[in-house]
Parts: sequence; structure tokens; C-alpha cells
Amino acid sequence: MTPQPSLYGVIPAGGAGTRLWPLSRKNEPKFLHPLSENGRSLLQATFDRVSALASPARTYVVTGKAHRRKVTEQLPDLGLRNMIAEPEPKGSAAAIGLAAAVIATRDPEAVMGSFAADHVVGDDEIFASAISDAVALAQEDYLVTVGITPTYAATGFGWIQRGDALPGGVGERVREFTEKPGREVAERYLAGGGALWNASMFAWRVATLLGELERQMPSLYEGLTRIAQVWDTGDRERAMAEIWPGLPNESIDDGVVVGAASRGRVAVVPGEFEWHDIGDWSALSELLQHGEKGNAILGEGDWLSHDDQNTVVVSTRNRVVGTVGLRDMVVVDTPDAVLVLPRERAQEVRRLVQLLGERGDTDHL
Amino acid sequence: MTPQPSLYGVIPAGGAGTRLWPLSRKNEPKFLHPLSENGRSLLQATFDRVSALASPARTYVVTGKAHRRKVTEQLPDLGLRNMIAEPEPKGSAAAIGLAAAVIATRDPEAVMGSFAADHVVGDDEIFASAISDAVALAQEDYLVTVGITPTYAATGFGWIQRGDALPGGVGERVREFTEKPGREVAERYLAGGGALWNASMFAWRVATLLGELERQMPSLYEGLTRIAQVWDTGDRERAMAEIWPGLPNESIDDGVVVGAASRGRVAVVPGEFEWHDIGDWSALSELLQHGEKGNAILGEGDWLSHDDQNTVVVSTRNRVVGTVGLRDMVVVDTPDAVLVLPRERAQEVRRLVQLLGERGDTDHL
Repeated sequence: MTPQPSLYGVIPAGGAGTRLWPLSRKNEPKFLHPLSENGRSLLQATFDRVSALASPARTYVVTGKAHRRKVTEQLPDLGLRNMIAEPEPKGSAAAIGLAAAVIATRDPEAVMGSFAADHVVGDDEIFASAISDAVALAQEDYLVTVGITPTYAATGFGWIQRGDALPGGVGERVREFTEKPGREVAERYLAGGGALWNASMFAWRVATLLGELERQMPSLYEGLTRIAQVWDTGDRERAMAEIWPGLPNESIDDGVVVGAASRGRVAVVPGEFEWHDIGDWSALSELLQHGEKGNAILGEGDWLSHDDQNTVVVSTRNRVVGTVGLRDMVVVDTPDAVLVLPRERAQEVRRLVQLLGERGDTDHL
Repeated sequence: MTPQPSLYGVIPAGGAGTRLWPLSRKNEPKFLHPLSENGRSLLQATFDRVSALASPARTYVVTGKAHRRKVTEQLPDLGLRNMIAEPEPKGSAAAIGLAAAVIATRDPEAVMGSFAADHVVGDDEIFASAISDAVALAQEDYLVTVGITPTYAATGFGWIQRGDALPGGVGERVREFTEKPGREVAERYLAGGGALWNASMFAWRVATLLGELERQMPSLYEGLTRIAQVWDTGDRERAMAEIWPGLPNESIDDGVVVGAASRGRVAVVPGEFEWHDIGDWSALSELLQHGEKGNAILGEGDWLSHDDQNTVVVSTRNRVVGTVGLRDMVVVDTPDAVLVLPRERAQEVRRLVQLLGERGDTDHL
């Protein structure tokens, strides 16, 4: 892999991962857990991948104050200066915008790539090649998104409609973003073959992004600029306490990218690598399952299985999990909670977390 | 309830309860666990019921040496003289026969009732009335079995065919025992209305039983008599060590009752009380389930349920068990193991225990 000399990597590490309860918790969210089979947490794997391209010295993490200690424990190579802590979540526009504003004060010519901390990416070489293409287009002042090659008619992701090819033979202009389409529309997109998934994986010059923020979200731009001006001084905490709570809460997609696309300022490069957004236990099952019977175990546990199929056991403890005759099920065993459900009900784990909230059970949230 | 002045209660507390893994273990078998909703273990509930009729002073327990300490802990009212410990299991003929032989040395005129430690009985008054009838017939030298009124076409129990009514208006002679019939036969029995379940619940004079043992199992009779002669002396341990290992291993039903029935020496009184042999998780579920959705929890756990039906959670720990969309399932959570299976596969828990044995995992057996 070729490191990109001008590239800064930014890893927004947020999101509760509610649907991955009881593994993912308020104080131990999804990105801190080793959800693929190599034993590295999603955050660590993302840092490995991104810092290989941007160098560890130019890789930043944006996360909640509550997670700062665990993030720095997991990432010994993350520089203290590269940790950006949010007092409270304000959406990805504020998180990524703050990283851009801080980096801009240190290197106004920087190109930054933004990569969510909780996605799984295979095929490092293909990934590096896509990022290289994205950086080249970012240098030409585009907001660049890496469009993932769809593998099924997903209704849970946004889709990217590709427009005209750009000069130079790499990438196209983005014609339109379609947020979470219905089943029929998604199937048409998949059959058509041209549309790509939006994985919120971006590259742009920090100056380009800040310009778009100034145009589309002026109050956010103004607040972030004031914070960035004092970031490397003793006034950082005071400015954050004063300004951050009043910033608008918006996603980078809706707040910036969609609007820029309508003005022809967004480009897409295809990302033909394996990519997973492990949103729920069913998605994790799909990632883990292999073999004739489709069974898989993740973690420390000892699975005693008799005639199970398409079933996944996730265990963070050295316990025995015994199962008989399960079909398309998920069993999750953590120190203080067990979860059992059919894969097709994976979305409804949210309901259990909601029940915990209603009864004020903060121990298990 | 009227105590029966001549009645001795004998509670054989044996059996591994393999199909109730991971709750029931080699060193913590089924009868030690609180499997009904009143918090008493099956053994304690049996002792309560039996000692109410026979008095605690005349209630005996026969159990394995390994369980002696836990049994005496659970039963503070059990007299030291009434604990009969087996060095190794030798089947119910030896266990019940030894109790009869020991009691006979202390009270040759005794009538004993034998009641398994791991059954659930409802309706104490009806139970007491049936035992009263059984004791009356036992005084006339019958081996008396209490026949349970069937509630479904069980293929897992023995069935009792009733013969001629006995003089006095209580009970009938047993015409025949049918061990575990096929589905079709069981359905015919149920439809016919006359047959009863054999719950291995017996009453007889100790002298009557010993006479049958002498006739049908002379080597067992001879061994038990030699042990009983020295039971209340310093030679007990020596005699047990010398004689017990060589005794034949046989059930009381096959070894004694079936043969006596063929000679017209077995009587049956109907037991119209609620009765459950909690052989597996499905049977336990049936015992526990009530309410519109058929869900139930047994134990300390905190069940977080969303849209489950006919599902039972058994938890020995103060943990959260979260489930979504389960149908006819069983989830068992113990300190070192979790079990998940559909109720209809309950018999196959045996297979998991067998797997543990094959891998030499004595910690979880």
C-alpha cells in the first residue's frame, strides 16, 4: 500500500450501537468490541487501515468524552494531539467539521479522509487504491465519496446515483443521493447495476469542506472556527463548554453532501472492497457465517452444539453455551446479560433497550 | 390431613436428571433444585408432603453418599438414623429394599410408603386420602401402587391395567403393567378411561416387600438382610463396602412389582391429584406455563421479553435474560452454562451431556 503524503485520516467514533445490545452498551459502544475474527476491535481495525495510508501521526479520532480513556487504551499509537473529544454528541457534521477545522489550523492544505470507526472493510489493497483515487479527486476540490459496490437490495443504506464521468478517467459526478429506499426501488437499483451504496466514507480538502460548511451551515461553521482558533491553547475547554452545546445537530450527509451534490460538487469513486456496516446481530451473523451449516461463534465461549443451523453464538466469557436444534438464531452471552432471538427479529433488540430505559435500569444500558 | 400411625415414609433420592442439564448436575441433581414456584426444592417438597403423613421421625431418605451433606442441609428435620446412604447407585430395588430391611429391624410391623424425591404433587388433601387408602390395602398384604389419573396419551410412563375390584370398595387388583407404550396404544388407553399411570408410588408392609424380594430376587434379599442385621452397629460401613457392590442392579418395578402383579398380589388405588414427573425442560415448561401467552420464568433472573410465546426462562442468577420473538423455546441460565433449545427437542439435551462426557469436561457435567 502506498501511503498518501497529503492525507489526514479522521475516524469519527460515535454511535451507541443499540441494536447490538447486550454487547454494545452506553459506556462500551460497538466500536470498542472485537466483532470480526482477528481479535482487534472495530476501532483498532479502522485505525490500522487508515493509519497505514495517512500515517499514525496524521490519524485523528473524534469521540465522546466518556470514551476517551478506552479509545486511548486501545490505540497506543494515537497521538494526544490527534484526540478530539466531544462533550456531547452533535451529529457527524459537527464531529467531522471540528476535525477539519482543527486540522486546517495545523495544515491548511490538508486532504482528509473520514472513516467510521464501526465498519468492517476487507481487501486492504483495493481499499487503498480507492482512497488513492478519492484523494486525487479531492485535490481538485470535489467532496469525494467512496461508493460501495452493492451486494444486495439494501433498504437500510443510502444509494448513490452516478452521473457524468469526470475527466481523467477516475470517478463520476454524483447525480443524486437516495436515502434508505423501499424494497422495490432498491431492487431496481441493484438490477440497474450503476448505483452504489453510500458508506459515509469521504475524502476532501479541509478547505473545501469548510467552504461548504460556511455556505450550507453557517452557524456550525462559525462555531467550529471559533473553537479551532483556540484549540491548541489553554482556552480549548472554555470554548468547547461555551460553544459546543449550541451547535446544530446534523449528519454530514444531510447537512453538507446532499446539498453539494445538487450543485455538482460531489464525486464518487467506486470501492470494490468487502464492506460491512454491522448494524445488528443479523448483519454480524452474515459477516461471521461460513461452512456447510452456517454456524459460527465469536468470542471466548465454549459452544456445545447439537444439530444447529445458521446460528451464531457471541460470547465474551469463558462459559459453556449449549444449544439444540436452533435454526437462524442468535445467542449472545455477556457477563451480566444473555440475549436470544431469531435473526429476522434483530431490529427489535431496540425494543429491549427501550424497556431497560423505561424501567431506569442504567446498569444494563 | 390425618397422619397414618403405622406409616413410614421412604424417599429414594437418586437419578441424575441428565435431561435437565445445565441446572441438574452430577453433584447437584434434579431433586436438590427448586423446580416449582414455591421456592422449596423437589426433595424438600417431597419431605414436607410425606412427613406430614408419616411424621418426620418415621420419614427416611435413601441417597448417594455424594449427596448426603446437601440432603441433610436441605432437610434439618431428617433424623440422622433415617438417612440411608448408598456408596454407588444400584437401582430402586436395592435402594427401596434396603430401606425396608432397615426399617424392619426397627419395627417389623411397619407399613412403608415410597415416594420419589423428584416428582411434583399438587392437592395435598387428595394425596393424603389416596395414601390412606393405599395403607389400608397394604395392611392386607398387597403391594399397593398409587395409579395417577392420566391427562394425556403419555408414551414416557408405564401404564397400569386395572382388574377386579377388591372387597371393601377401595382399589382394584392390577391386571398388568405396560411399560412405555407406543403413541397409538397410549391413545387407546387414554380413550378407554380405565388405565392409570404408574408413578412408582408404592405402599406395602415391609414384611410383604421383603417376602417378595426373597421370592423374586433372592440374592438381593440375602445381601440386604445381611446389611440390615448390622446396620445399627459399628459394622455397617464394612458390610456395605463388602456386600453393596455385588448386589444386582434392578428397578423395583421390573424386579418385584411386575412379577407380583402376575400372581395377583398388586393392588392399585387411584390418585386423582395433580402429578408431574419433571423429566425434561418441556415437562417443566408445561408445569410452569400459564397466562395468555404461555410464558413463565423460574428463578432469580430478570426476564426482558418482547413478543415471546410459550417460552420458559429458568435462571439461577441475578442476570438479565433478553429475548425477542421466541416461540416454544426454553432458555436456561446458570452460573457456568447457558442452554437454548426448542421445547420439542428437550429429549436431546442428553446429547449435549454426552458431548461433555466425550470431551472429559467434568466441570460442566
